[in-house]
Amino acid sequence: MRPDGLHVLKAHGTGNDFVVLLDPDDTYPLDPAVVVALCDRRSGLGADGVIRVVAADVEGTDGWFMDHVNADGGPALMCGNGVRVLAHSLIDAGLVDPAAGEVAVLSRSGPRPVRTVAAGYPVYGVEMGPVRVAEDIVAVTVTSGDGSSRRLPGVGVDVGNPHVVVDVGPGAALSQVDLARRPGLEPEPVDGTNVELVGDLAQGETLASGQLRMRVHERGVGETQSCGTGAVAAAAAAASRRAGSPAQWTVDVPGGRLRVLLRRREGQGIVSSELSGPAEVVARAVVDRGWLERVSR
Amino acid sequence: MRPDGLHVLKAHGTGNDFVVLLDPDDTYPLDPAVVVALCDRRSGLGADGVIRVVAADVEGTDGWFMDHVNADGGPALMCGNGVRVLAHSLIDAGLVDPAAGEVAVLSRSGPRPVRTVAAGYPVYGVEMGPVRVAEDIVAVTVTSGDGSSRRLPGVGVDVGNPHVVVDVGPGAALSQVDLARRPGLEPEPVDGTNVELVGDLAQGETLASGQLRMRVHERGVGETQSCGTGAVAAAAAAASRRAGSPAQWTVDVPGGRLRVLLRRREGQGIVSSELSGPAEVVARAVVDRGWLERVSR
Repeated sequence: MRPDGLHVLKAHGTGNDFVVLLDPDDTYPLDPAVVVALCDRRSGLGADGVIRVVAADVEGTDGWFMDHVNADGGPALMCGNGVRVLAHSLIDAGLVDPAAGEVAVLSRSGPRPVRTVAAGYPVYGVEMGPVRVAEDIVAVTVTSGDGSSRRLPGVGVDVGNPHVVVDVGPGAALSQVDLARRPGLEPEPVDGTNVELVGDLAQGETLASGQLRMRVHERGVGETQSCGTGAVAAAAAAASRRAGSPAQWTVDVPGGRLRVLLRRREGQGIVSSELSGPAEVVARAVVDRGWLERVSR
Repeated sequence: MRPDGLHVLKAHGTGNDFVVLLDPDDTYPLDPAVVVALCDRRSGLGADGVIRVVAADVEGTDGWFMDHVNADGGPALMCGNGVRVLAHSLIDAGLVDPAAGEVAVLSRSGPRPVRTVAAGYPVYGVEMGPVRVAEDIVAVTVTSGDGSSRRLPGVGVDVGNPHVVVDVGPGAALSQVDLARRPGLEPEPVDGTNVELVGDLAQGETLASGQLRMRVHERGVGETQSCGTGAVAAAAAAASRRAGSPAQWTVDVPGGRLRVLLRRREGQGIVSSELSGPAEVVARAVVDRGWLERVSR
């Protein structure tokens, strides 16, 4: 830490926001109590999580380890929005040259190369790896704002982290769901899961055009404006509904628009995927030393 | 604005949080669109409001004008937590010497001197002026988390800004109220109002000991962790219930503990009041220029 305090960035990708700590030399391991306090939206800086970025060897290349901890202080495996925010933060700080076209990132789910898709307002493409759509159906109890609830079939999807995707039906149904609490699941996954609600999946039009609307309840966080792995999971669940559905998907989340590319291979399912979307630095901040000492006690 | 961006503080008083812009020379008038974007808790810095601090003459003394704008972009009259945060920010930045014992602040509700109550972890006392408790009763419809609702009598209180204080009864009733939306009022005040829910007011014990628990729905903001004028209003409404109730009140809000002193004069009601509580700077931040340009378009 520098004498004046802890230098961090407040940044977001489609409204999924992070406190980013650039720590190339691995000098400031994250204390869960500090992460919880930093992420508190009233008495802290406020974020869905903290991403500490440490220089690391990634498959023989000079790259960066994504030490990502959720707002509840627990380690996160991987976050598609977070990894774009990480790449953008490194470029913003001059630690990575955007002309290289790619940033080598190592997440807790393995390597995740980030491509610089567009100049100007930055858009990044992230390799998300294979996606596995489960055969078994999960019963999801979805509650609406008026207190009524429905039991709907959900599909388990693994994108390096676990998801359950459920179609809540056409029209305004998606906006009416109460996501203050996570929908109940049966069977209940031992280690928890993210839950994605999508609208209109049953509509042939949606499947043909590759356009989805989605809301998400993230494990350890609650409802967020966006979830990158969730967007990939939602597209994969939708694509699994029908042979011949598109490879390119647009997923509109409350915080903005994401794009998902699914690469399928005959008999092997989705062998790799790519997520693209924007990332933005809001502010460069120095967290007060006295505050840090108080919250880490 | 300095070349690297807009220099601000992220600070809070009992969880009521603000982006503070120290602008002694009045060079950066607040654009409502920028305030809304700064206060956004996902794609901005996140706060209940922005306080711009401008050097001003306060009744013949060198002091500070509190240009306070709520998260919705509308001007705020006065905020008892905000004015402590303002004083602490000035001391933090070295613009005011804490040894002077007092900071002269001019709010939109008039002068509000802030006293330095304690050294170390800073506690400030704020002169809040006279308090007027209305004779008329307002009907307040309070909804609980289970969807049930009750009509309860509310008391209008003027602390420079408008409040309605309602007693929701003993035990866990206070924590069970759903404050996602403001309780309905009859008659509905034309310019809106803050609504304070207090627990246990009917208990003689509460009135005798001067201890209250409170939750608040702030006009233009929603539920917050704390509201300084609201704490004064709640104490005044409680004190008006019984002759001989104490002058010193402790008001526990979700974000911490506030103290209220009510000064009564025979036949004139509460002629002045003082609110005291903590204030804390979390971080010193520089808001990105490109981000500011984008949100102010």
